[in-house]
Formats: sequence, structure tokens, C-alpha cells
Amino acid sequence: MTDYRRLRVALLGAGAVGSQVAALLLKHGDELADRAGAALDLVGISVRDLDARRDVDLPRELLTTDPEPLLVGADIVIELMGGIEPARTSILQAIGAGADIVTANKALLATHGPELFEAADQVGASIYYEAAAAGAIPIIRPLRDSLAGDRVQRIMGIVNGTTNYILDRMDREGSDFADVLADAQALGYAESDPTADVEGYDAAQKAAILASLAFHTAVPLSAVHREGITRIDADMMDAARKAGYVIKLLAVCERLADAEVSPSGESISVRVYPALVPREHPLASVHGANNAVFVQAEAAGDLMFYGAGAGGVQTASAVLGDVVSAARRHIAGGVGVGESTRANLPVVPIGHVVTRYQITLEVEDRPGVLAAVAGVLSDGRVSIATLEQTIVTGDDAQTARLVIGTHTAREQDLSDTVDALGASGVVQRVVSVLRVEGD
Amino acid sequence: MTDYRRLRVALLGAGAVGSQVAALLLKHGDELADRAGAALDLVGISVRDLDARRDVDLPRELLTTDPEPLLVGADIVIELMGGIEPARTSILQAIGAGADIVTANKALLATHGPELFEAADQVGASIYYEAAAAGAIPIIRPLRDSLAGDRVQRIMGIVNGTTNYILDRMDREGSDFADVLADAQALGYAESDPTADVEGYDAAQKAAILASLAFHTAVPLSAVHREGITRIDADMMDAARKAGYVIKLLAVCERLADAEVSPSGESISVRVYPALVPREHPLASVHGANNAVFVQAEAAGDLMFYGAGAGGVQTASAVLGDVVSAARRHIAGGVGVGESTRANLPVVPIGHVVTRYQITLEVEDRPGVLAAVAGVLSDGRVSIATLEQTIVTGDDAQTARLVIGTHTAREQDLSDTVDALGASGVVQRVVSVLRVEGD
Repeated sequence: MTDYRRLRVALLGAGAVGSQVAALLLKHGDELADRAGAALDLVGISVRDLDARRDVDLPRELLTTDPEPLLVGADIVIELMGGIEPARTSILQAIGAGADIVTANKALLATHGPELFEAADQVGASIYYEAAAAGAIPIIRPLRDSLAGDRVQRIMGIVNGTTNYILDRMDREGSDFADVLADAQALGYAESDPTADVEGYDAAQKAAILASLAFHTAVPLSAVHREGITRIDADMMDAARKAGYVIKLLAVCERLADAEVSPSGESISVRVYPALVPREHPLASVHGANNAVFVQAEAAGDLMFYGAGAGGVQTASAVLGDVVSAARRHIAGGVGVGESTRANLPVVPIGHVVTRYQITLEVEDRPGVLAAVAGVLSDGRVSIATLEQTIVTGDDAQTARLVIGTHTAREQDLSDTVDALGASGVVQRVVSVLRVEGD
Repeated sequence: MTDYRRLRVALLGAGAVGSQVAALLLKHGDELADRAGAALDLVGISVRDLDARRDVDLPRELLTTDPEPLLVGADIVIELMGGIEPARTSILQAIGAGADIVTANKALLATHGPELFEAADQVGASIYYEAAAAGAIPIIRPLRDSLAGDRVQRIMGIVNGTTNYILDRMDREGSDFADVLADAQALGYAESDPTADVEGYDAAQKAAILASLAFHTAVPLSAVHREGITRIDADMMDAARKAGYVIKLLAVCERLADAEVSPSGESISVRVYPALVPREHPLASVHGANNAVFVQAEAAGDLMFYGAGAGGVQTASAVLGDVVSAARRHIAGGVGVGESTRANLPVVPIGHVVTRYQITLEVEDRPGVLAAVAGVLSDGRVSIATLEQTIVTGDDAQTARLVIGTHTAREQDLSDTVDALGASGVVQRVVSVLRVEGD
């Protein structure tokens, strides 16, 4: 083997991803050295509990509960602890000591990204985070480098494996949310506290990261509109299927021409919500816990990136790719990845978004109701594209179910109109309001 | 606008891709400068004919028929002339003069890649070629960087838009090859001389590039096994459809464990041929002139990259991404992309490949024939997985059509066995032999 310069690599965290990273780094060391042009010496692994059960066996002598000594003299620090602290402090410390950083910590990047990138910039260090956005799917480099000469118009991503697994099973089996969630928890696809996934927090963090890259704008997590999937039920799934749609939790990052909010006339919207996706759209056939990111760019047209969105060994692949990149840069010098936030576009609130909607209402089955509903919509500047009425015979009286597909409307107008429908006296219940994306 | 360092960019060639690159470079100059950290001054465009009709209007004062003066003092040279010469000489000249290169020239890279990379390496220049492998689809950076810490096991790519367009229409319409080809030529999807596409030469060049990257091995074009799609007819398409397959022209790059040919026990196979792909495989739903690259890696699992495989403006997106990368490197120094050929695995001939096959035979419809066919297969070490017999009543006599699906077999054994079937006396005609990939 070639006599390479040796780089000191410290690993913080040995959970599902970290233990796989350590194992692969040890197993394929020679091969990685050839690719990186440097030998990667794993000098230590900081863990919370030396005796914890791990997916793979790690050399005991590398384990330590104290990350501090590992950071001294490290060339590359891999942070896989997750969470904000102590990850943030350790990363800042490592940057200060001259290390390049590889992290999969989406929560940290989405909340403290600018602080970390600024600190790295000060000392010429780099932060690599391919594993933070969509697991094993290479999406950071395509957005940052391959599409650097293009203008991204829109990203629609299925970026959370747990919710896609749940929605996919609900769609295929006709089951209810709670049942599939319980099963997903038993099978290890969902955490015992599923909030981060099912309420869309995880997806919102990834959306902030993707939008920042795609639009060269620092997108704070607080600017991401977020809705989860807990209100999606078997009826909604069934109605979607019959109408030729599937319900997916989407991260939508969109460039808007909206002179109202930006002197340049441009702004962006970043939002996470369950949406109706046409069955023939490529995202509709993303099944199970898989992820996919659909990108529309001015010149490149439609692109899609598909793969495993989570999983220890899969995510480890993305982490190790970053380690090799960091090593190459460490050897050869030059600029790392950095941030590009020059465009600095304003992020508009959800009320500005323009999309199509499907509104499902329960109304009394009597003459004049349809006209009244149509009147409320028209007053609210919401134009009807399709309308389907089904008579439901209940215990007491006959009611009708109206499914209204709208033309594109402004979210604020739509929301005001739905309120007006609820207060109109003719609508018994607003069953659901769902956005339609990708048609 | 920030006062950036100015970089001199020379463009060689203003065809479908080149004219779009020039137009986008001029239109989005300020935005690209912000991303690159350098102003990109297009100093000239060399063309064959100053008065040629182009897709977009270019400033006349930038056009020249003499590339030589453009290369002097250029920081970045974009080569979009295509073909071997004078592209090769111009690139070597530009490298000698200290420029970084951006090219989409797959023919040149597949035949003279090592020479060019070596020349660039000598002077610390870089060659960027994202547009050479699958049009607008970002695949070079994912393979080179994102998967640098992983081991690619297999790539299956639909990397030629023309043949995918033809096969897709044949599949959907039941039409014959010649008719669809003529139509594709009329519509501009195929060249008037379609040889490079339909005989698989274009796909073979891309396969060589992808395999080189994926396996860190210099793969010469001559080592790529190549078959085209001209022998695919409506009957074969129809039979494939009925059996749950679709026929796609695939570029397959595969890591093999084959102790026979390599002391390390590893080797690779790189091949282009029409193959049966199961309908449920993600590649089966790549329609029209689109491209997709399906990658299986040891840690990352299955990944797919999908998008436009050709088209002037789409390919221009990939070229401009490379221009921004080259500019960043030019400003910040450090290593560019380079080649990684350390693994240097042997490329095995097609005879070593192990895959499944579907053999369609016409035989006499009489007792003993099936036993004879089965005997020949068994003698040839080809094991039968499925067998379907259909009786065809012709003018003279009844014949039977046998469709035999094999278990995995070695290509050499299969090929010898097919020869033996032909010579056996019981087989009237070997209708077709197709590999099955992706199941």
C-alpha cells in the first residue's frame, strides 16, 4: 500500500449510523485511503455508554465517554450524536482546532447552520452534511455543484421514511393511521415517540437545508410551514385513490415571482404538508420507507433522486463519502463546501402560496345548497375546476358529500373561503382540505 | 454587484448545447458570479461557420472560426465541439496553457480519457465532464464524491435517449423498429445516421465513463461489450410484455467475484445490450427520451438518478454546473476532480458474465422434442427456470414456440448451448436470446 499522509479522524457518537461508519472505516481503510489520497486513522469514538449494545462490534480501545481529547489534533471530526447540545459545542470546538466537520445532524444545521458555517468560514474549515438531507441519497452535491449553473424552480421531496412507510401502507391496505403507526413502531420503522416524524418536524428540518442550498438563501427553520400526517385517515386515503391521487408528506421548496414581498420580484416558499400527488407522478411510486427528491430546474428540466432515506448503514455511506471529500481537501487545500447565501431571497408565509386544493364538505341534501357553496367560493376568489356530489343516507336524514377540486388559488383566499364555508349555514362539516401538488 | 476577480471563459463549439451554454452564461452572469465567487467573462466562441443557423442568437462579436487565440490566457475552456479531433488537440493545448477544462465529449473521454487526465494531472489542471455521462442528470459527482466511501456493486443505466424513445414507443404502440426509427428521425429524436445510438456506441462510451468512476479503474472503450437494438422487433416486444418485462437498452457495469481472472478475486464487467427488465423495476418506468441510472452500492443500497438524458438546454445545465465548480477551484486553489484509477480491476470479457436469459425457439410439434431441448440445455450447464410452449399452426405443419427462462448461467455456456440447440436438429429456429436484468 502507498505510504500516504495520515489523517486523524474522530467519531462522535456510535448509534445506528455511527457504529456502521466506524465499522466501514475500519473494514475498507485501504480502499478509502486510495480514493482519498490519505490514510484515515480512526483515533477514537466518543459514546455515552461504553457498554451499550451496538449493531456492530467496535474495538473497545477506541471507545471513550469523553469527546474532548479526541478533538485535539483531529483533522476530520464526524459528528453523529444528533440533537443540539453537546453536538453544537463539540463542532465549534473542533472547527476552532482546525478540523473539517462531517455531520448528519439536520436538527442542528436547520437551527444553528449559519453560526456553524460562519465559524468554519472564519478559519477556512468545511462542514460536510450529505447525510443530513435525505439519508443515503446524494442530493447535497447535485444541488450545490451540479446545478450551480442552473436555477432551481421547485423541489418536491419525500424526505421522511417513517411517514412515507405509514402513508404507503395506509394507501395499500386501507388501514387507519393509528393502526399502521402502532405496527410501524413494533417493526422499528417509527420511534416510540413518533412526534418528530409524524408531525413533520424532521421533514421541515430537511426542507430548510434543501431550500437553503437550492435557492442560495439561509432559510431558518422557523420560516418553514409545517403540518403533519396525524389527521390523515382511511377515508381521505380512499377518496384520494378514487380520484387518481395518493397522499404523500411532501417538503415543497418553491421559487415564487411575487413582487409584493421582494424588490427583486422573487421570493421562496418552504413548506411541509401532506398533499395529493397524481398517481402518474414519479413521486407517487416511491414506496415503503424510501425517499425521493424531485427537482425542477430552469435548464435541466425535471430530475429525480431516489434511494434509502434512513437506515444506519445506508446513511453511513453518505457520511463516508463526505469523509473522503474532507480528506481530499485536507490534503490538497482549496475551498471546501461552504455556504452560498448570496441570493438571500425572502421566505414568504404560507398565505402567499398559490396551489390547487381539494375540499371535501358534508352538506344538507336540499335544493339551493350547491348554489350557496358555489357562491361562497366565488366570493372568496376560489374558482371551481371539478365538483363531485355523493348522496350519503344516514340514520336521520340524507346528507350529501361534495368533493371540490379548485383551480390554483392563493392559500390565504382558500383558507378564508373555507372559514366562510364553515360559517355559511349550508355546510355541516368541512371533512378535509388538501393541497394538490405535482400536476 | 460585488467586485469579483474576473475569469476568462472560452467556448469551443456553438451547436445545440454550446449555444445554450453561451446564452445562459450571458443571461445569468451576475447570479453565476455570486455562486462561483468570480465573474465569468465569456471571451469568445469558436464555431465552424459564422453564419450557421443557431437555436439562440449569440453576439456576433464573440464568434470566431479560429479557436487558437481564445485558448491563450483562458482560465476555463468549455469544449463542446464533439468528436475526437480537433477537440483533443484543443483541450491538450488549453491544459498546457493552464486552463481548467469543461467538456461533454463522451467519445473523446471514452477513447482518450487517460491521456487527457494525465496531461491535466501534470500541470494541476482539472477536467470536468458532468454532461458527458447522462445529459442533465447529476451522476458524475454522486459517483465520484458522494459514493467515494462506499463500494458500488452494480450500475444499470438507461443512458441513451434515442433508443429509449424508440423502445418505449415500440412497447406502447406495438410498432416495428424501422417505423418508429423513421418517425423518431422526422421528429428530431434520432439522427439521420442513427448508428451511434441504435448500435449502442453512444451508450458504450457512457458505460466506459460510468464504470471508470464507479470502480476506480480506467475502462477502455474496447473493453465494453456492445450490442444495439436493431434486431428487436414487435414480436419480441410483445412477448416481453406478456411475460411481465419491458425491453430496455441497458449499460450494465458490474463488480464480479471471479478468482479466475484477478489475483484479488475481483473484476468488473461493462456491457451494453438490450435486456428484459421486470415491469416493476424502477427502470421500467423510464419513458420517452429520458435517462436514468440505477446504482446498487454495498452500504447505500439502491439509488436511482433520473432526468433528461439529452437536449441542448438540459445538457447546458450540467456544463454550467461544471463551469461554476471550475471557477471556484480556480479562485480557491486545491485539487479538482482528477481521476481515481487506483483499484485498477481487470475488465472481463462477456463470456464470463453470469445472468439470466430468456430463449425463444421454434421447434417441430412432435413427441420427444421437449426432452431433446431439455437435454441440450442440461448438457450445456444451463438450468431451466420456466418453460412455456405455444402451438403455432402454419400453412404446412404445426410448429411449437418454446420460451425458456433460465436460471443464472455463464454467458459462454449459454452461448455454446444456443449454438448446440441450433445444430441439434430439433430446433427449427432460434427466434431470440435476451438477457434478463434487474430481477
